[in-house]
Amino acid sequence: MTYCLAMRLHEGLVFLADTRTNAGVDNVGIYSKQHVFQPTTNSTFVLQSAGNLATTQEVLDRLRRDLDRPGDHDSLATASYLFEAALYVGTVLRTVIEEHQQALHGADATATLILGGQVGQEAADILLVYPEGNYIRASDDMPFLQIGETKYGKFLLEMAATLDVDTATAVKIAISSMLSTARANVAVGPPYDLALYSRDTHALETQRIDADSQSLRALSYAWERMLRSSVAQLPSFLPADLPQLDEWIVENLPAG
Amino acid sequence: MTYCLAMRLHEGLVFLADTRTNAGVDNVGIYSKQHVFQPTTNSTFVLQSAGNLATTQEVLDRLRRDLDRPGDHDSLATASYLFEAALYVGTVLRTVIEEHQQALHGADATATLILGGQVGQEAADILLVYPEGNYIRASDDMPFLQIGETKYGKFLLEMAATLDVDTATAVKIAISSMLSTARANVAVGPPYDLALYSRDTHALETQRIDADSQSLRALSYAWERMLRSSVAQLPSFLPADLPQLDEWIVENLPAG
Repeated sequence: MTYCLAMRLHEGLVFLADTRTNAGVDNVGIYSKQHVFQPTTNSTFVLQSAGNLATTQEVLDRLRRDLDRPGDHDSLATASYLFEAALYVGTVLRTVIEEHQQALHGADATATLILGGQVGQEAADILLVYPEGNYIRASDDMPFLQIGETKYGKFLLEMAATLDVDTATAVKIAISSMLSTARANVAVGPPYDLALYSRDTHALETQRIDADSQSLRALSYAWERMLRSSVAQLPSFLPADLPQLDEWIVENLPAG
Repeated sequence: MTYCLAMRLHEGLVFLADTRTNAGVDNVGIYSKQHVFQPTTNSTFVLQSAGNLATTQEVLDRLRRDLDRPGDHDSLATASYLFEAALYVGTVLRTVIEEHQQALHGADATATLILGGQVGQEAADILLVYPEGNYIRASDDMPFLQIGETKYGKFLLEMAATLDVDTATAVKIAISSMLSTARANVAVGPPYDLALYSRDTHALETQRIDADSQSLRALSYAWERMLRSSVAQLPSFLPADLPQLDEWIVENLPAG
């Protein structure tokens, strides 16, 4: 399994991916699922992948070959818009899947990708590329995308991820969402790859967060402590306490 | 879809279930998925159900008929232990599934149940009954069970649900877990049925929480506000802020 997420903020883009792969519980590996391409001075791409590892590796190899040998074919360097890059990557992805699906005798050859970044002066964005080769963008109401094991960590993103959060806050939300997922599903795990893109800069900051890092332990500890204290501060729902709940509502809840 | 959860605490048991059913998005209904049986003066059962609605309704009808017509057969009244009641309910469940599965031409006739309560002086407990008729108990390390759409709300349970939380706190956790799930999946929704059992009392307190209740709105509002403030208080993970993170660790993180 895998968990990758990307956020689009007014300030820029945030990407976070785990690195755990498994083919059965007795065959667990560490592979990066987040890859950076800067094929020209004014195009930056981050590609995240979830799904069949052989498929995603061949897709990456084909993308790199297309860049290595410029010619009469598309590549990440020839895209003038982010959606053109997404369609190109989608075509490569679909081709690789079709090439191997039949021989897999029912095992799943598919993969799903998130492609984010900026091409020239077009606004930075994040797109989810389906195994069929088409794509969707994140919306302004839900300015994030997830692939892989998406359910455990969605709650936090829905509650807190808005266009106007700053990058520091977005990173906290992203890592907390990742920790919730890794805690619930052993097929998602550290190290984690973080990438930050400030819009219109074509400069990317990347960071690997290791399993035994003090900082990860600190965030996990702080998060758990604050969550418990938040729960403690909520008004009580016990039938006997309902009169106090009414008081709490009058004092705390905005009208409307 | 459905979301039901049950918790086993030192103080007693907490049950919470949504009421939304759907056969396609154009066929949505409200059915209680949480049912109380008190067949003798010293046995109390709460039964939660997720899965095929026809199956769960026939199971309930059969359980009630077995109680109505005492005789040479098992019923909830004849169980001397909670696990006997779970096996009896499991047998009824498996029978109903087998009766209809073939005619459904591939549609899923199965259902999964949570049976909680207390029989006589045996400790109160919660058991998950599989469609195959067998069961598991909640563990002391994870003293909760979930059925239906379990992933979105698991995070909160894992973080905060321990044997020693009091009932008021457990109810806050349960409702928050339900709200996270309903927010992410429209197939889970209010009203919500809450049941509280204080151990060794054989007295059950039940409460229906309506969609438009002020109290539900209050909890949802408080929860969102506190979550955002928790995120704001977390230490920053931005590469530029890592020196401050080190300070934060020295000041806040317990040794070890």
